[in-house]
Amino acid sequence: MSALAEQTNTPFVAVDLDVVDGNIERMQARSAALGLDFRPHVKTHKLPLIAHRQLKAGAVGVACQKLSEAKVMASAGVGPILITYPLMGEEKWREAAILASEFEFEFSADSAVAVEGLGAHLDPEGDVAIRVDCDTGRWRTGVPEPADALRLAQLIESIPGMRFGGLVTHPAPDDARTWFEEAIRIFGEAGLEIPVISVGGTPVSFTDAPAFEAATEFRAGTYVYGDRACIASGSNSEEQCAMRIHAMVISLPTETRAVVDAGSKVLAADGAEGIDDGLHGHVVGHPGITIPMLSEEHGHLDLTAAPGSLKLGEIVEIIPNHACAVTNLNDEVLLHRSGRTLGFEPVPARGKSR
Amino acid sequence: MSALAEQTNTPFVAVDLDVVDGNIERMQARSAALGLDFRPHVKTHKLPLIAHRQLKAGAVGVACQKLSEAKVMASAGVGPILITYPLMGEEKWREAAILASEFEFEFSADSAVAVEGLGAHLDPEGDVAIRVDCDTGRWRTGVPEPADALRLAQLIESIPGMRFGGLVTHPAPDDARTWFEEAIRIFGEAGLEIPVISVGGTPVSFTDAPAFEAATEFRAGTYVYGDRACIASGSNSEEQCAMRIHAMVISLPTETRAVVDAGSKVLAADGAEGIDDGLHGHVVGHPGITIPMLSEEHGHLDLTAAPGSLKLGEIVEIIPNHACAVTNLNDEVLLHRSGRTLGFEPVPARGKSR
Repeated sequence: MSALAEQTNTPFVAVDLDVVDGNIERMQARSAALGLDFRPHVKTHKLPLIAHRQLKAGAVGVACQKLSEAKVMASAGVGPILITYPLMGEEKWREAAILASEFEFEFSADSAVAVEGLGAHLDPEGDVAIRVDCDTGRWRTGVPEPADALRLAQLIESIPGMRFGGLVTHPAPDDARTWFEEAIRIFGEAGLEIPVISVGGTPVSFTDAPAFEAATEFRAGTYVYGDRACIASGSNSEEQCAMRIHAMVISLPTETRAVVDAGSKVLAADGAEGIDDGLHGHVVGHPGITIPMLSEEHGHLDLTAAPGSLKLGEIVEIIPNHACAVTNLNDEVLLHRSGRTLGFEPVPARGKSR
Repeated sequence: MSALAEQTNTPFVAVDLDVVDGNIERMQARSAALGLDFRPHVKTHKLPLIAHRQLKAGAVGVACQKLSEAKVMASAGVGPILITYPLMGEEKWREAAILASEFEFEFSADSAVAVEGLGAHLDPEGDVAIRVDCDTGRWRTGVPEPADALRLAQLIESIPGMRFGGLVTHPAPDDARTWFEEAIRIFGEAGLEIPVISVGGTPVSFTDAPAFEAATEFRAGTYVYGDRACIASGSNSEEQCAMRIHAMVISLPTETRAVVDAGSKVLAADGAEGIDDGLHGHVVGHPGITIPMLSEEHGHLDLTAAPGSLKLGEIVEIIPNHACAVTNLNDEVLLHRSGRTLGFEPVPARGKSR
């Protein structure tokens, strides 16, 4: 019996480091083949030890969305760090300026308010890169048009202590190529160089996304653990999913219904693009079993296609819908490799949403 | 400006203790009017200080689903504790037996495996009450039929160290009354007294649920904070919702779209019964604004019906879809009363799903 199988105090999140290492190499090679720098989002693992592996494999830096998450990473020696999130409010600007004075940071912004707010706190003798967040077709943050990006870049250049660091978008919809080509044209006319064009998203990572043609940097997060959405998008096979929730069958009311001890408080209720089937995770090794419903502490398994295939006390492995959401729910993960465990590792950036 | 309004480092979860106290009194009075004992589920707040208020107001004890959650409560002096969850596996049985020897605990079970497993670990000289978990019409845990309940109760009575503690179900569907009346009949024929019949669920708390006719105990959790599902079910008005997520407008791409800094990692992606409209929370004081989508760290607000009604840096208060899920995501809550804050309080049972 492997050391992993001896862990029976369920539910818990297991992460296979062999698979993690494979995914890191694979994505680094993919970015190299595309001629793009690679920058992982740490949100998927929130673990400095995995961020360090990503950097060692060749990543140019990492991306964080929230300053509190970035602080955990910076304190653990992870960097350089790009904040791909508009910072708003005095507290955030003050903290960002302090972080930039202590560590290697870049920021992004999509409004003059954010740029001027941060600018008022930065050391005017410094040289902090600020990227312009661009909405290239997806309903999220970012300036709507290339002309807006130019105006914001010029504002950034005019403020002491900061410089224009490039353009950033998420994810990389097909329209992004046209958007960036237009930006390159008007920035060129204005005589302003675009140092970086950064696009992102695990789902497009192994596709021929048109945005890659205009980009210089690629960002992705979920690929490193993989999940059911990654299987659907083709970025990870089942074997390339490093994160598995180990859950025990705690109730077996009939031959066709089982309840496991991982519900939405462990597996997360999140759906995701490409898996809009209302199901909550994939039960490894049991193709006939589905998870049609989660209660807070119950996972409801439908065994209609495989009646009697589970017994009370049996442990199943579940690949979740969305790995990042699972990371943000669970205080620790069990790291393992080749059947040996490295024990439970606390996830220090879990819940860091400020 | 109140001390609460001075808190601008968003996002954070605020809990109004005046509203909490009102909800505690209201539910205690409701249970008394129904002639039922009341037992709150702590999962909604996961805070010993609120559990103590519930007990002081007259609750006969609290309910926990997981042992790790119960341990936090017991260590903080909260009890007696009922575990309304089938315990499975050697680790759980061993831990349950230790908890029962140190604190006042009752357990529940829906299988002979669980009863015999726990029985092997209990002090045979002891007298721990074990309730039979009953499936009275809802697809979850519990024995399917009253005759199964009787068999399991008789097994419990036969094992040294434990005694039959009654019947428990969740929630309280209309069929539950018939189910329990049948149970009362066959238990009576067998000469086995049913000390407690426990039903539960905030959504039915202020309805004339037929199950109340057969019950002796009522359990509920969410009522204490309230949420969008509670507003829909009628258990709480908007004013009776104590939990509000304070989030800041960090991006305002157009007059009709705003992005706030609370996404699914703060608000939870959970839907709930009665609010199957695909929306994610209620923005207090802005009836024209909806939240049609959440990214991990972004709340996407639709201002179509109230264009231009928010500005960058403005803080909005959001009543979440599901308060319990929010509690389980956030490390701390800001307690306040009458505009004064008691500071951020850690939530010690957050993430305790083992």
